[in-house]
Amino acid sequence: MGLRTVEHYKASLRDGRVVYFRGKRVDDVTKHPVIGLAVNHAAIDYEIAHQPEHRSLAVYMDPATGQECSRYFKIPQNADDLLKRSQLIETSTRLGGTLVVLIKEIGTDCLFALHLVAKQMDEQFGSEYLPRVRAIYEHCRNNDLAMAVAQTDVKGDRSRGPAEQDHPDYYVRVVERRSGGIIVRGAKVHTSVTPNANELFVIPTRNLTEADKDYAVAFCIPLNTPGLKQIASPYGYGHANGFTHPITSRHKMMETLTVFDDVFVPNERVFMNGEWEFAGGLAKTFVEFHRFTAISYKLPLLDLLAGSALLIAEQNGIDRSGHVREKLTWLISYAETVRMLTQMAAIHCTTKDGIAVPNTAAVNIAKLHFASNYHQALMHVQDLTGGLLVTGPAEEDLRNPDTGKYIDRYLGAARKVSAEQRLRTINLISDLTTGDFGGYQAVLAIHAEGSLEAEKLTILREYDQEGAKSYARQMAGISNSIGTL
Amino acid sequence: MGLRTVEHYKASLRDGRVVYFRGKRVDDVTKHPVIGLAVNHAAIDYEIAHQPEHRSLAVYMDPATGQECSRYFKIPQNADDLLKRSQLIETSTRLGGTLVVLIKEIGTDCLFALHLVAKQMDEQFGSEYLPRVRAIYEHCRNNDLAMAVAQTDVKGDRSRGPAEQDHPDYYVRVVERRSGGIIVRGAKVHTSVTPNANELFVIPTRNLTEADKDYAVAFCIPLNTPGLKQIASPYGYGHANGFTHPITSRHKMMETLTVFDDVFVPNERVFMNGEWEFAGGLAKTFVEFHRFTAISYKLPLLDLLAGSALLIAEQNGIDRSGHVREKLTWLISYAETVRMLTQMAAIHCTTKDGIAVPNTAAVNIAKLHFASNYHQALMHVQDLTGGLLVTGPAEEDLRNPDTGKYIDRYLGAARKVSAEQRLRTINLISDLTTGDFGGYQAVLAIHAEGSLEAEKLTILREYDQEGAKSYARQMAGISNSIGTL
Amino acid sequence: MGLRTVEHYKASLRDGRVVYFRGKRVDDVTKHPVIGLAVNHAAIDYEIAHQPEHRSLAVYMDPATGQECSRYFKIPQNADDLLKRSQLIETSTRLGGTLVVLIKEIGTDCLFALHLVAKQMDEQFGSEYLPRVRAIYEHCRNNDLAMAVAQTDVKGDRSRGPAEQDHPDYYVRVVERRSGGIIVRGAKVHTSVTPNANELFVIPTRNLTEADKDYAVAFCIPLNTPGLKQIASPYGYGHANGFTHPITSRHKMMETLTVFDDVFVPNERVFMNGEWEFAGGLAKTFVEFHRFTAISYKLPLLDLLAGSALLIAEQNGIDRSGHVREKLTWLISYAETVRMLTQMAAIHCTTKDGIAVPNTAAVNIAKLHFASNYHQALMHVQDLTGGLLVTGPAEEDLRNPDTGKYIDRYLGAARKVSAEQRLRTINLISDLTTGDFGGYQAVLAIHAEGSLEAEKLTILREYDQEGAKSYARQMAGISNSIGTL
Amino acid sequence: MGLRTVEHYKASLRDGRVVYFRGKRVDDVTKHPVIGLAVNHAAIDYEIAHQPEHRSLAVYMDPATGQECSRYFKIPQNADDLLKRSQLIETSTRLGGTLVVLIKEIGTDCLFALHLVAKQMDEQFGSEYLPRVRAIYEHCRNNDLAMAVAQTDVKGDRSRGPAEQDHPDYYVRVVERRSGGIIVRGAKVHTSVTPNANELFVIPTRNLTEADKDYAVAFCIPLNTPGLKQIASPYGYGHANGFTHPITSRHKMMETLTVFDDVFVPNERVFMNGEWEFAGGLAKTFVEFHRFTAISYKLPLLDLLAGSALLIAEQNGIDRSGHVREKLTWLISYAETVRMLTQMAAIHCTTKDGIAVPNTAAVNIAKLHFASNYHQALMHVQDLTGGLLVTGPAEEDLRNPDTGKYIDRYLGAARKVSAEQRLRTINLISDLTTGDFGGYQAVLAIHAEGSLEAEKLTILREYDQEGAKSYARQMAGISNSIGTL
Repeated sequence: MGLRTVEHYKASLRDGRVVYFRGKRVDDVTKHPVIGLAVNHAAIDYEIAHQPEHRSLAVYMDPATGQECSRYFKIPQNADDLLKRSQLIETSTRLGGTLVVLIKEIGTDCLFALHLVAKQMDEQFGSEYLPRVRAIYEHCRNNDLAMAVAQTDVKGDRSRGPAEQDHPDYYVRVVERRSGGIIVRGAKVHTSVTPNANELFVIPTRNLTEADKDYAVAFCIPLNTPGLKQIASPYGYGHANGFTHPITSRHKMMETLTVFDDVFVPNERVFMNGEWEFAGGLAKTFVEFHRFTAISYKLPLLDLLAGSALLIAEQNGIDRSGHVREKLTWLISYAETVRMLTQMAAIHCTTKDGIAVPNTAAVNIAKLHFASNYHQALMHVQDLTGGLLVTGPAEEDLRNPDTGKYIDRYLGAARKVSAEQRLRTINLISDLTTGDFGGYQAVLAIHAEGSLEAEKLTILREYDQEGAKSYARQMAGISNSIGTL
Repeated sequence: MGLRTVEHYKASLRDGRVVYFRGKRVDDVTKHPVIGLAVNHAAIDYEIAHQPEHRSLAVYMDPATGQECSRYFKIPQNADDLLKRSQLIETSTRLGGTLVVLIKEIGTDCLFALHLVAKQMDEQFGSEYLPRVRAIYEHCRNNDLAMAVAQTDVKGDRSRGPAEQDHPDYYVRVVERRSGGIIVRGAKVHTSVTPNANELFVIPTRNLTEADKDYAVAFCIPLNTPGLKQIASPYGYGHANGFTHPITSRHKMMETLTVFDDVFVPNERVFMNGEWEFAGGLAKTFVEFHRFTAISYKLPLLDLLAGSALLIAEQNGIDRSGHVREKLTWLISYAETVRMLTQMAAIHCTTKDGIAVPNTAAVNIAKLHFASNYHQALMHVQDLTGGLLVTGPAEEDLRNPDTGKYIDRYLGAARKVSAEQRLRTINLISDLTTGDFGGYQAVLAIHAEGSLEAEKLTILREYDQEGAKSYARQMAGISNSIGTL
Repeated sequence: MGLRTVEHYKASLRDGRVVYFRGKRVDDVTKHPVIGLAVNHAAIDYEIAHQPEHRSLAVYMDPATGQECSRYFKIPQNADDLLKRSQLIETSTRLGGTLVVLIKEIGTDCLFALHLVAKQMDEQFGSEYLPRVRAIYEHCRNNDLAMAVAQTDVKGDRSRGPAEQDHPDYYVRVVERRSGGIIVRGAKVHTSVTPNANELFVIPTRNLTEADKDYAVAFCIPLNTPGLKQIASPYGYGHANGFTHPITSRHKMMETLTVFDDVFVPNERVFMNGEWEFAGGLAKTFVEFHRFTAISYKLPLLDLLAGSALLIAEQNGIDRSGHVREKLTWLISYAETVRMLTQMAAIHCTTKDGIAVPNTAAVNIAKLHFASNYHQALMHVQDLTGGLLVTGPAEEDLRNPDTGKYIDRYLGAARKVSAEQRLRTINLISDLTTGDFGGYQAVLAIHAEGSLEAEKLTILREYDQEGAKSYARQMAGISNSIGTL
Repeated sequence: MGLRTVEHYKASLRDGRVVYFRGKRVDDVTKHPVIGLAVNHAAIDYEIAHQPEHRSLAVYMDPATGQECSRYFKIPQNADDLLKRSQLIETSTRLGGTLVVLIKEIGTDCLFALHLVAKQMDEQFGSEYLPRVRAIYEHCRNNDLAMAVAQTDVKGDRSRGPAEQDHPDYYVRVVERRSGGIIVRGAKVHTSVTPNANELFVIPTRNLTEADKDYAVAFCIPLNTPGLKQIASPYGYGHANGFTHPITSRHKMMETLTVFDDVFVPNERVFMNGEWEFAGGLAKTFVEFHRFTAISYKLPLLDLLAGSALLIAEQNGIDRSGHVREKLTWLISYAETVRMLTQMAAIHCTTKDGIAVPNTAAVNIAKLHFASNYHQALMHVQDLTGGLLVTGPAEEDLRNPDTGKYIDRYLGAARKVSAEQRLRTINLISDLTTGDFGGYQAVLAIHAEGSLEAEKLTILREYDQEGAKSYARQMAGISNSIGTL
């Protein structure tokens, strides 16, 4: 089938899926006033393959089938593949107004991880997961499907494991095993793009013990599978005006509480079923691919923070001031550091079973640098912009001549920038940093793709601690020769 | 007249004032769906005087008239008066859901400053401003009026002064002087509570030169004065649901672009008219009182950040974790440092002409500490709360049994906290930190009552530089005796 | 006896005490080239009582004896006593070139704590510790003695308690109980001023369990007690030149590894003997008094960082630059914040058994603010000063005409400041921030009087968590009435 | 001649050069107790070429001469050359105990810059500087010479330019032009390795105006040239004991005030003589190469901070604690971020006139990241180590059985680490962070190779501001198409 069009994509979403929004079942997600916006945003991942200026980046020729496929599906084999994948993610996010498109990004991250971990399980247990993974991969790629990944369990009391909770369903689990498949029960939270994807991958969220055996489950199902129910979050809905909300009037992503009410999954779509020893490994392998996706898709956001800060500083006539230049430099260093570390993650990749895995240390250091400085970046941008971020007039005030004449005269700025141009710049920054979307991006910065603490643990674990301690021992005169790190 | 009721206050706002909202003239601000919310919020400053538990704090007996008056109007004469004023501001803001009420706070800050500066002008120029200030003060106090203050000019190119701009109206100025009064033209931005105040004070925003003489103007006018037009900001409107928006469904403050389209001000209401030498002094004196108000009204916000973080950490079952305790401690230290510095500003006050002025160094250090750490505080609170801040379900989902049963089962948390309780806690934090109100508070943190840079300059100027350098010289062996700081 | 002179003090140190320095037994500490410097520094606490300009601060009339005593011994009864104590500590440290004098400060901190905890023990166990404490207090006060406090055990593996270590002596303990007294064994680290004090107080360093009963011991012994051996640290010795080392050529404090090689302590000098339930309480009570001493004695250091930064910025001709003013403001805010929080700790004290205890929250927030920003302060000061901090010429180069002529001509600076004056300023900052003393102050900042982590735990524990959570619950709609913090 | 031996190198320093140390002329620098240490340290750059394990990195075959030369002299032509150069600098610094060796590093940085700028001058003015540069380059390379670079002028009042100072000699200048050469006068500060180099390069330190024409001068002279006088800094001398000072008892670098008392420079050694338009360009070009050297040589220092922190955390038994892991992760991220940005600077190099120039943005972002976090790193390492950093015993105490027995018993630690091993680790960290060397490294962090502010300006200037603003304009709806950064 190859590359779908936007129309194909939209049509595929009218499949009887069960989605609730504000307590009501949604008939057709493509026509829903809020979810429809997310559908249109997601369509960017289809449009881009047909746009001449992006085609060579967005499409690759699959050697096996001889067909053109979306590059998202290209299994990375070397640094160059990872760099191109990163560039594609960056480009589509840029087209998406700094909001990641995600419907192919996250699913392929999961598929790459499944390839690696399925092989390990098959080797250890003699299972046959890898062929299943390959089949579903080809199915998704050849049909150019949109994919979501449900990983984060609802967790209950975070200080206890799955089997120690007040009730057994705080983590998704297998409640029954039949000859043809399994029955799963539970729920996952903040699953992204579920209402407008075709396939849903489900994987564990943490290390498990033997007592948690039934929680070690991974599979993939179509989103209209019986028993699968989505409760969509109403967060941040309803920005109609492009003047005050230039980004969020056009771009949107949905998250759901994804409920598995005794869902049947046929065996050929099950990729883990009780192998608790590999639950943590699958969770981690997915996350490492996905954090590489994350640092790639954060780049347009950081560019826009720097770019809009530069623009408003000029418009406000403050760009020569010492403290302003200090803050601009900070924003630039921030963006460029994350960009360079992201490239380094590709360049220093390691290859396992023919799959190039981004350098874990680089990925996590980049992600942590991004996440732990994001709120500081917001502060600087807001500082340079001024109070009009939250006190400016409406577009209707600008258009009404009785009020528009005052706005034109009084809200103009340095270098003969018109009031409208300046207000548009301010509204961009307001949309990006102060409202629902500003909060959404801030929360994603510290929670999406793993928490700050998860990233720290990974960095500590990945470091060559022995090499570093060895140098210290030699310098301290405790041991003799000078080793190499 | 003494203490007005809420009904008196609301009735007084139906006076023909010209207010635009989204391009349309507003008939009755008290009935407007958005501004009406702000009216109700402002009413707290009237209600509090009638509430038994707050009455002794909110009311004082004026010795001159023998009448009970709102304590906001009590001219502070010593540290204790300032501490009580601070406590009153903190209490009303606490009742206001961390949003300052402001309709008496800011106006009295301005009146205190006018007393001090009018006296200086009268001494230097033989003018008679002080009697005018006293008269308007008694008018406001005796009639328990709501007041707004318009200070921030629209400014145009910030690198240039008022007389150097592309057109002469980027700062409010006197365009004509008549026998009975003056005509003023121009506009002020982000004036707070204008749509629902009775009187509007207008003062300069910066130091002026002789060339800027016509910009040195201060006065007070009723809000229905002809030629006075308000363009209200639409920022952050329309939260109807108390479940998802527990604060902003009940509390709101309005800001306006306040236009003076050749407004006549009678002489008895003019407090500065060309005395450019005192423009900066008036601006600064007001700001110093107002920053003391600011640090007082920030305290409930900081308490709520700490308190909600403690609560959600418990509910999530993470409160014993090392990094969580670190972040909680940070939030507590942050709140308590600002509180202690605020008290110190009162305790170390100086008295001028019988008016106790909060300690400038303490006020500005407190304000800067608050402002420069606010975004970091948001990060910690969001970090402890989790992704549900922006991905949680709606109240309707909770109420609909088809979806509510899943939410009840899956979103509960540690210590048998129900899903609803936990979601309410999360929604509180979401309303406080991630949406329009979160952005509003963040922008106010760094822009309201003067910028970060203004606070820094004040701190540098207020410090006993000579004392400190003298100690350094002695220690360096450059001079002899050891002085005292 | 009342107030001793410096000569009395020095004579009292020639008492046969066992002190080792660089592997050699020291005959007379007052004549030792390094320890002698510390003796002279400590003498400040005696000199100050005889200096007319400091006398009223340094001395108080004891009502019981009718004698003049050193104010350090005055048991604080209210905020004013604490403010004066803080001011005295600040003043003597100022005379001490930013290095605390300590020989009366720390001992009285310990005595205050012993009063409070002895009373608690006596009430619970019917012991008679309080009279012993009073007797030793009067002994020290009436004889104007110099005191050291040994608290920090050597600890071994920090992840284990006293009774769980590889050998039983990692914490000081009672090895034998006789009718007339006890035998103690073990060692304490980084005990300050031990070589030049008269009495040594020994108290526990942490909470203990019943298994640790023998480690619950507190007592006081003269420093020439048999079996007590001091191994003095050689850190930072040997600065002879006042030009390059204006502070450390005159000021010095000693630390020792203090060994108790089966030391006999008579009963009347034992203040805890097995009451493990109170070990943590005594440790904590001492530390709280001592942290108040700490934040008081840090003030001259912070003043000097700010003052020398202001001075060198002027001399370098950079004081008008934006980034320089930013850094100066930071240093000023840092010093003043700690100062104001310190005063608040006195003002908000609580009184127990007639003793005013500094406000624990304020003390710890002040201490943590000091400690967690100290290295940043060093960075700013070094940044403003320049590379000559570590590349400047020697005094001999300045005095030799062959080289001095070049130095005079080339190292002068802005505002006709001579090369010598500028070099003296730079050397002051170098001595204060870059060499042994700079490192010593930096390490003390984060380790003396308890670690960063200990301060954080205290802040978290002291906070009104219930009040804060209650406000959050009310705002979230979980509970009804609005409480007060 | 090719590769010199250490003996050749040392012999070459006995050439009659004029060096003063503490006011006295030094006869033979190789035998001086302090400078001799620096000579031995510098010898590493010669030893490394003869060590089998480093030879392939330290030596390259020069194609023109067919001789083996030190790789420092290899003019980089591509990313790989830069990566190898970086690796060589890192390796020699590692052997140098985290102290850069510098005697070939800095001179070649200067030579690379001279190649580029000489060509530009020749093209614009028809001068013949490039052949002179090539000749001196070949002279240094073929004779394997040690080189110093004097760049930083003494500057006087930093707010004024060279021609505006109180006297004309605050910047080095040409005072006379003769047929065979020029006479130069003035002084440079903190010139490194001057006492033990063979050749001294002199270049301008800043942008100049036409009025500053005589200050536009660049040249190279042997260090025994008449009129050239060095006043060596006494900072940090005299650590004899390898137990307490494991680094500084073996490693040392010298800085001098370098005086040009009317020094004659023959024309063939003059590379700039009045071309003020290129002064800033030469300064900047050198600095960019040199900052790449800097970030390369900082890596062992950052590795050792991380490694010694890991080691002492283990020895103290605290490595499982949450806050400890947080600090270790911070140190690791810090080291690895600088390392990856350094590699990126090589990978993203640009080639001018056949010379690969490290990516300026990457270099400066790396340098600023290093410099602005260094003091924070010190804080974390000191925090993890404990107070023994400044209160530990001497080696003599350990060796004396009377005291050694106590030290052995009491200062041991977790995991049966002996007291001696632990003290060695602590002393390493003390030597690295708390004493003269600690201060030296800290000051170098923020001043060497340009200040923090210089790095910030470069980052701001190098950024694609137009690209970033263009994206902002498009997102704001001010312009149409979506460009690419």
